[in-house]
Amino acid sequence: MAKALVILLLLFSVQAKAQKTMPGDVVIIASKILQENRTVYIHYPKPDSSNINKRFPVLYLMDGESHFDMLAQYADYLSRWDVKAIPQMIVVGVANTKRTRDLTPSESIFNYYGKPDTSATSWMRPSGGNEKFLQFISQELIPYVDSNYKTISYKILAGHSFGGIASINCLLTHPGMFDAYVAISPSFWWDREYVLKLADKRLREGTVLYKTLFYSDGNEGMDDSSTFHTNLLTFDSLLSVRKIKGLVRTYKYYPTETHMTEPVTAYYDALRFIFKDWKEK
Amino acid sequence: MAKALVILLLLFSVQAKAQKTMPGDVVIIASKILQENRTVYIHYPKPDSSNINKRFPVLYLMDGESHFDMLAQYADYLSRWDVKAIPQMIVVGVANTKRTRDLTPSESIFNYYGKPDTSATSWMRPSGGNEKFLQFISQELIPYVDSNYKTISYKILAGHSFGGIASINCLLTHPGMFDAYVAISPSFWWDREYVLKLADKRLREGTVLYKTLFYSDGNEGMDDSSTFHTNLLTFDSLLSVRKIKGLVRTYKYYPTETHMTEPVTAYYDALRFIFKDWKEK
Repeated sequence: MAKALVILLLLFSVQAKAQKTMPGDVVIIASKILQENRTVYIHYPKPDSSNINKRFPVLYLMDGESHFDMLAQYADYLSRWDVKAIPQMIVVGVANTKRTRDLTPSESIFNYYGKPDTSATSWMRPSGGNEKFLQFISQELIPYVDSNYKTISYKILAGHSFGGIASINCLLTHPGMFDAYVAISPSFWWDREYVLKLADKRLREGTVLYKTLFYSDGNEGMDDSSTFHTNLLTFDSLLSVRKIKGLVRTYKYYPTETHMTEPVTAYYDALRFIFKDWKEK
Repeated sequence: MAKALVILLLLFSVQAKAQKTMPGDVVIIASKILQENRTVYIHYPKPDSSNINKRFPVLYLMDGESHFDMLAQYADYLSRWDVKAIPQMIVVGVANTKRTRDLTPSESIFNYYGKPDTSATSWMRPSGGNEKFLQFISQELIPYVDSNYKTISYKILAGHSFGGIASINCLLTHPGMFDAYVAISPSFWWDREYVLKLADKRLREGTVLYKTLFYSDGNEGMDDSSTFHTNLLTFDSLLSVRKIKGLVRTYKYYPTETHMTEPVTAYYDALRFIFKDWKEK
């Protein structure tokens, strides 16, 4: 009885209850290039007296439904006045429709084990649409963000797994699109190492590439867990041997993280790496 | 002209724009114990068919305005169906009013350097109200959360800096209140190592304490940056020597993190540590 009364009093003592929000928009873009509506999450720094006239770099993130909240939170926290490890930034997360189609750079029927998957209903179909997806980003999404938000030209492209190969594919085929590229556990296995072969072809010794690149892998937890790690070591070694001029890069291996926990640590490390020399003006 | 037209078309092609929200409430509790209104953020798992009848552990967080979004995001992401590193949980963040008063366990005028600060307007005043704050948590906040959200009895108390000594003070003085305690860079320097002395007194050899404890420090970036680290090593050594029965603990040192970046990594590691043996039933 006494306890019930206490609870009643407590309930009565709650004076207000509101919904928690975050400074962010959900935008639907009708893409002419992709011929479909695309949902995009856009997070921006909370306007205050210290940043009222400022413009911000933009991080473009693939797999928006998976990692947008994480990146938005990192962007906010790490740029707080009492943390200041990175600048305030805008985070743009693109949600998937047909993930394999958009994030793979070649059409392929070869699965993780290099075996053909000829099933008409395979999760691998359709594939090879990354070039078109990058056109959507460069010709529709970036202009939209630049028109509607307070951006500077500095841009980051970030992705995980298939998003990781999409990020490296963009660096190799459209290096001018972004200033920094993040590839967390890139699925180099795709199409029998298509992106590794492309890197080998495009990154000749002495190539000039004034870009920043972060790439990583973890303990992927697949049946054959060495494939990711072997491929990442090959990619890292390729970049070392070719001596790409201007490329500021780091490779991180996280043996205690799984394929899905790795982004928590790796996206944080990637932001710290990209802005390691940043100082507030 | 062509470009302007493209931009116009793009603007026209945005079909909807909405505000991004997160599943969370902002509650104002009129505390009888503290004689003031307290703002509390409460994040809970998004209800879906897989968890409709489930109840959840609760993490109580000090400095809610600083780290609530971070913990809410970690709780969500790490419990996703495709990540499942920890269980779904409720996160309760208490925003500060008088931080020094609520989070320090003793009244003190001795600053970080052990020198008296007798200024009437010192940021150190008032102090020593942690016992009352813990009463607010146990007698008002926890009953409110248990009455209004789907909780199980498993509870975590987590704090950083002053919140770190508050967490350890609670473990020492009210060990029954929580099941796990997180203390990130606890300010052991407070009142000439008051909490270290208390630990020395309370944790006799053979003390039985079936609890989980995570504590850590970083490169604190103070003038005398060794104070935190020396104190943490002392605390860790004390726990090792006293052989507390039942205590599952870990100490992490982050030399590449500052006092303010450390929580990003340490809260993640703390959650992984607390639930390292967790498996979904």
